[in-house]
Amino acid sequence: MRHFVVHGHDAPTTADFDLSDLAGGAGRLDVLCRCVGAGLFLSHGVREDVRVSLVLADELTVRFEGSEIRYLNPDERNIAGMVRKAIGATDRAIGHREAEPSPGVYVSKRGFAPTVEAAARGGTVVQLHEDGRPLADVEPPETPVFVLSDHRDFTDAEASLLADASDERVRVGPAVLHADHTIAVAHNYLDTRGYTRY
Amino acid sequence: MRHFVVHGHDAPTTADFDLSDLAGGAGRLDVLCRCVGAGLFLSHGVREDVRVSLVLADELTVRFEGSEIRYLNPDERNIAGMVRKAIGATDRAIGHREAEPSPGVYVSKRGFAPTVEAAARGGTVVQLHEDGRPLADVEPPETPVFVLSDHRDFTDAEASLLADASDERVRVGPAVLHADHTIAVAHNYLDTRGYTRY
Repeated sequence: MRHFVVHGHDAPTTADFDLSDLAGGAGRLDVLCRCVGAGLFLSHGVREDVRVSLVLADELTVRFEGSEIRYLNPDERNIAGMVRKAIGATDRAIGHREAEPSPGVYVSKRGFAPTVEAAARGGTVVQLHEDGRPLADVEPPETPVFVLSDHRDFTDAEASLLADASDERVRVGPAVLHADHTIAVAHNYLDTRGYTRY
Repeated sequence: MRHFVVHGHDAPTTADFDLSDLAGGAGRLDVLCRCVGAGLFLSHGVREDVRVSLVLADELTVRFEGSEIRYLNPDERNIAGMVRKAIGATDRAIGHREAEPSPGVYVSKRGFAPTVEAAARGGTVVQLHEDGRPLADVEPPETPVFVLSDHRDFTDAEASLLADASDERVRVGPAVLHADHTIAVAHNYLDTRGYTRY
């Protein structure tokens, strides 16, 4: 299992946003949608061993399960529609329990900390950090959890929590990439078992 | 300079498509838009040494120059708007000459073959092929040209032309990726000089 957690700091938490204005009125939800696409899609199918958790403004978490997902297309608008439907089902998520508004799509009232802490219990948290080890030098974990941020940096509190939860600190290269491009790089690193198997 | 050429086999060649239906009525233009984003964008800026050429249905080519581009955001809808504006300027592109409807965005009446042949004269064409060498084993070229397809495979004629134009044949891993994810992987390979510099 590979798990990608992405925090959308400005993401919407109510379902009244416009699918035609994802980059503006919907708080850069476009970035998060591309992360879901990069996490879940192969050229002709879905990666079944992948989970993507979108944390929306530290209030909600929408979880996509590759093994269960149906009716998802890789374009931003389609994925944003799934997110909007999930947000609209929040009233059915009581406490930290999840609702499942679409097959393989779950929503809960969890912010960043509980989502990262739960992910850390189920896998090896890999922190992306400019002072980390080169990705190519690190043995790929069996159950990696990559935690990423949207167009904003992590807050100090988030970075501190992430440092505590992390088992490994890596950097993916000299350039600072968008979260979705980082996910594509991470998948390739895992697919090739650290660039050794093609 | 890095150059990515992407052929959108079903892409629109007239400007009357709906920006809210990129994956359907606009012939999977969403894929091409994500390729432009993956090609041009860093986390906080544009890659100035990158060119992305979208071939639309073997009829038109829209070229994005990273060093000249203005007013481009990484969401699909924004990029699709740029493509639509470029298509709308086609009547100002006479023969193989280009029009420049937006800064750094050029359109010409070139199909796949002339675009690939021109790219090959300016760089080292790298063909992505399941029988190619592992990407990590190949020395990164100075001026690589990656030629990719959208959600369809290359036709036999295109594959043959590409094989003739190619200097190197590589595979990026055991999984078959979307074109935009392949571009993210290729950039990381080049950024790290073949996974040696982080």
